[in-house]
Amino acid sequence: MPKILIIGDGQLARMLHTEAIELGLSLRVLANSPTESAAAICGDVILGDYHDEATVKAAATGVDVITFEHEHVPAHIIDNLIRDGYNVQPHGDALIHAQDKLVMRRALRNAGAPVPPFAPIDSTDDARAFWEAMDGAVCLKARTGGYDGKGVWFPDSLDELEQLVAEQLDHNTPLMAEKKVHLNRELSALIARSPRGEVRCWDIAETNQDGGVCRWAQAPAANVDAEKIETFATGIAETLDVTGVLAVELFDTDEGIFVNELAMRPHNTGHWTQNGATTSQFEQHLRAVANLPLGSTDMTCAHAVMANILGGDTTWDHDLGERIATVWRSYPDAKIHLYGKQHRPGRKLGHINLTGSDPIAVRADALAAAHYIAHGHWPA
Amino acid sequence: MPKILIIGDGQLARMLHTEAIELGLSLRVLANSPTESAAAICGDVILGDYHDEATVKAAATGVDVITFEHEHVPAHIIDNLIRDGYNVQPHGDALIHAQDKLVMRRALRNAGAPVPPFAPIDSTDDARAFWEAMDGAVCLKARTGGYDGKGVWFPDSLDELEQLVAEQLDHNTPLMAEKKVHLNRELSALIARSPRGEVRCWDIAETNQDGGVCRWAQAPAANVDAEKIETFATGIAETLDVTGVLAVELFDTDEGIFVNELAMRPHNTGHWTQNGATTSQFEQHLRAVANLPLGSTDMTCAHAVMANILGGDTTWDHDLGERIATVWRSYPDAKIHLYGKQHRPGRKLGHINLTGSDPIAVRADALAAAHYIAHGHWPA
Repeated sequence: MPKILIIGDGQLARMLHTEAIELGLSLRVLANSPTESAAAICGDVILGDYHDEATVKAAATGVDVITFEHEHVPAHIIDNLIRDGYNVQPHGDALIHAQDKLVMRRALRNAGAPVPPFAPIDSTDDARAFWEAMDGAVCLKARTGGYDGKGVWFPDSLDELEQLVAEQLDHNTPLMAEKKVHLNRELSALIARSPRGEVRCWDIAETNQDGGVCRWAQAPAANVDAEKIETFATGIAETLDVTGVLAVELFDTDEGIFVNELAMRPHNTGHWTQNGATTSQFEQHLRAVANLPLGSTDMTCAHAVMANILGGDTTWDHDLGERIATVWRSYPDAKIHLYGKQHRPGRKLGHINLTGSDPIAVRADALAAAHYIAHGHWPA
Repeated sequence: MPKILIIGDGQLARMLHTEAIELGLSLRVLANSPTESAAAICGDVILGDYHDEATVKAAATGVDVITFEHEHVPAHIIDNLIRDGYNVQPHGDALIHAQDKLVMRRALRNAGAPVPPFAPIDSTDDARAFWEAMDGAVCLKARTGGYDGKGVWFPDSLDELEQLVAEQLDHNTPLMAEKKVHLNRELSALIARSPRGEVRCWDIAETNQDGGVCRWAQAPAANVDAEKIETFATGIAETLDVTGVLAVELFDTDEGIFVNELAMRPHNTGHWTQNGATTSQFEQHLRAVANLPLGSTDMTCAHAVMANILGGDTTWDHDLGERIATVWRSYPDAKIHLYGKQHRPGRKLGHINLTGSDPIAVRADALAAAHYIAHGHWPA
């Protein structure tokens, strides 16, 4: 069976690892520290910095496939790996669209996909022009490196925008801006594609973010034209030649659906597939990057909800084991996934998956269970 | 979260490990060799011999719970660990019934559970007396250490029995004999019990053995009095004070149901729970030995089948990855679990779980898929 290198040491690499073990695939993790989420539980860990080409190449020695749990590996390293004959999935020409939001917006627009109006921001003059064109409805974004709401700003005034732009350009942060749209809700289209071109789509999920951080995801989303979205997401995967899992984050607005972000890896909004679909996004990503046939994406339940366990501000009178015991006494079918991370306010520490026949009840229960584990008390 | 030591390095420890990672439980493996199934994928491996008390105690330092993937740890080591304050689950007074078939038979008979006629065999005289009493329908068993059909003999004549007994007693193998019953089929009752006395039963499975080695298991078994068997299996767990998973292997005969064997750990006949039940036997075993609330054992499908991938005699023109690809092209919803073991004829290399609505078709498909991976061609 192929040997796979995952660049990254967080919870996505951790959950890829558990699926890899069951499949008999041999996984190696390139990690910053032996105590990180994936490094702590993997038997084949290379410690080092993924910004260093020699480190990445040393880690890649003897593996059959290199893949990622994040978009932060510098593009020139990926290009050099491919030039030197390494098998990188997804390859750099695809991954650049998940790394650079401006490149992604341009490619999507060229492919005819719906994106909000946008512009590169290389000066405060650019910022002022875009602000005026958008009538002040402006979202400023770092083109690269952002995640979980980091690198995204919603200025309330032109002064604030100009100040932000000046500061960020001083820090050499490449910027773009796009029209701030009025969201009715967010959706996520999750698909997988293999190098031989096989594609599978999971059910569309409705997702909820707070401060840029995912709170919950629920599948299937109600009242969506799933066929249209799947066709559209498949088109993006094929046009950009994506391999592995592709998450297409969507804004559902009064003006229709817009693409917000692309991620070319397992995604927080797809964790529900671990307990709600025949093939999880983690298993499917491994199958896809190894160019093995893809699995069925059929749901195994009527409704599935994932609720993130986000570190709270509270301190507890009882430990994690006791909080979990309390949750399981109330919800014996709650599937608890923990990442082995130290508590920090707002940090993603784990998630709860719950399935059932009543979509409203399932979501309320999953959120209550996740809240209890994070806070040590039930939500008000 | 509690730290758990698993004594054993095979596929059961491997699959306990993947569930432990998802639960955020920290697992340590006591292994014979770093290349064994569980040792190869676990980040916290202690190498050593579980027959050596000092080794086991050193491995147990700093853990909250000690548990097992087999019954072969000497009873005196377990007793000494408990005496010294270690938390061993299941404890030695329970585990002795899975270690010594004669002790188990006596306890079951005293508890009123149905067992075939049996006797200790300490001499060829004992053997001859039992042969005559049973009219030649005799199964000879090593009291301890047997598995997968090893340590079980079906002599065709009194001469053969006497010779076997003389040989085995010469090797200091403690022996017992029981009446050879005519099987209509075999069943498996899988239950879990926690130290605080919580009990959960999964659906009864029909199982199939060939030469003492499990071929397949299917849940739910047709035409069984599930309630009666569950009551009966729960009674065994409570009487023997079992903690963790208990597998009660049953013979279904014209004279009724008899208990064949007990295993106090996840069991091959329960692998279907990984993809066919809300809580797998591996997750449940960890929850039980850590004294956490037990999970729902509801099935998530109409029918679930597990088929073992047993090493064949053939050599292949193509590699494992290609055989898996072929299986997945035919069965995209087949859940393949591989143990990372080198091929050897007859060896358990992995298993396939398949679920569906037609029990006959699901079993045929699972067996075909497992056969293909083992042999490189479809069954005739």
